Amino acid sequence: MWSSMAGVCARSALVTGANRGIGLGFVQHLLALPNPPEVVFAACRDPKGQRAQELQKLASKHRSLVIVPLEVTDPASIKAAAASVGEHLKGSGLNLLINNAALLKVNTLDTETLKDMSEVYTTNTVGPLLLSQALLPLLKKAAQGSPGSGLSCSKAAIVNISSTGGSISSLTGWDVIELVSYRCSKAALNMLTRCQSMGYREHGILCVALHPGWVQTDMGSAGGHTAPLTVDASVAGMLKVLSSLSKKDTGTFLDWEGNVVAW
Amino acid sequence: MWSSMAGVCARSALVTGANRGIGLGFVQHLLALPNPPEVVFAACRDPKGQRAQELQKLASKHRSLVIVPLEVTDPASIKAAAASVGEHLKGSGLNLLINNAALLKVNTLDTETLKDMSEVYTTNTVGPLLLSQALLPLLKKAAQGSPGSGLSCSKAAIVNISSTGGSISSLTGWDVIELVSYRCSKAALNMLTRCQSMGYREHGILCVALHPGWVQTDMGSAGGHTAPLTVDASVAGMLKVLSSLSKKDTGTFLDWEGNVVAW
Repeated sequence: MWSSMAGVCARSALVTGANRGIGLGFVQHLLALPNPPEVVFAACRDPKGQRAQELQKLASKHRSLVIVPLEVTDPASIKAAAASVGEHLKGSGLNLLINNAALLKVNTLDTETLKDMSEVYTTNTVGPLLLSQALLPLLKKAAQGSPGSGLSCSKAAIVNISSTGGSISSLTGWDVIELVSYRCSKAALNMLTRCQSMGYREHGILCVALHPGWVQTDMGSAGGHTAPLTVDASVAGMLKVLSSLSKKDTGTFLDWEGNVVAW
Repeated sequence: MWSSMAGVCARSALVTGANRGIGLGFVQHLLALPNPPEVVFAACRDPKGQRAQELQKLASKHRSLVIVPLEVTDPASIKAAAASVGEHLKGSGLNLLINNAALLKVNTLDTETLKDMSEVYTTNTVGPLLLSQALLPLLKKAAQGSPGSGLSCSKAAIVNISSTGGSISSLTGWDVIELVSYRCSKAALNMLTRCQSMGYREHGILCVALHPGWVQTDMGSAGGHTAPLTVDASVAGMLKVLSSLSKKDTGTFLDWEGNVVAW
């Protein structure tokens, strides 16, 4: 595993879609930090299921890892997860929310449907909105409990995992796969990130959209392609980027190397 | 009514949300062109209803105006409307599709819900996708039946009525009203427009996103504000812009005066 810089000093963090891919990578890297969070909440849909076995194994080794059942498309599940996180934190706030859970459906412009468009949007855009709303009191509390007046990921932050696939201005060639539902949902997530950065700035919460690169995950392999970047390299890069963020970076769209991505 | 330039020479056009506001304005201006379309399809949800009276009155005066029942959130309704349009065209293609129907819900970042996010996205983003799919054979036919190799609104075009409210990069201040669901849907519509421009270019179909300005409509008055622009001025401006578009403009985002709007 690549070493992550020690910069992110969140006392608590929550990662969605944490059972595999980039989400699982975030959990592993956070736990392996020289100065790890006191508690890492790993949220996933089916914690007892076959696809959460790696997460279960990790939890048996790390007492600071708390697995939280969460279906980001279900407001009741979001409410229950937020309540459970609040109880675990026993009066402390939540420093870092990483909205990573996402859905990709391989469609062409001709084969997109209402169902696929809606499902992808609900998971990729509405989920991050609703979870941020539900965890807002805990994020505010973390910001209030941290020293200084600036913004940082050690204080309080919402990190929305986006994609260059959602970059409207970068779409100059009809490349690889069409992915209309995915692209639309990520463009909307970028807009949400900017809205959140405006609305939550006064609460001391930094908001950023990150492009993880084209990563070797199930999603990165959609359509039978081979992604160039390992999960470790992507996550180590993103954590390094997160550690460097300050007030001037809220509302921006950055890649895993810290480069600004065009909207 | 402001005079529209004679530039758009579509033999047929379809406007959604045509019973009021900007949609009704488009219908009126198209019918009043020196060289009007042979048929203007005015699509709206409830053609017999109270809110479609002006459209009914207009139809009683203009034989070229065909009112089409259409609920853009319902795939079955879209399919039926496309079939009906095809029958009316008796073998001809459809030159101009104006995706104007839209929904705005006044919410803050704190009060947005799954329901509002979904409804606004379905109407503002998924509707234009599905209607364009359904009318694609007729748009292709219009392109094939027109002379020349370029792109233009007289040949075949999809015009998505967007908004600077969907401009991610322009959101530098938290202005007027927050409108998260609306902003996200319009950012996604802009992405859709770019996808459509890539995918439909080979079929000879021009695709563009237009910002109509802040117009004196029911929607423009949401939140109790007073919009500066009349429907007539906005629609006349947009028709003039449409008449000037060529191949180089497909996939762009322009306002009612022809200025490029940042994504």
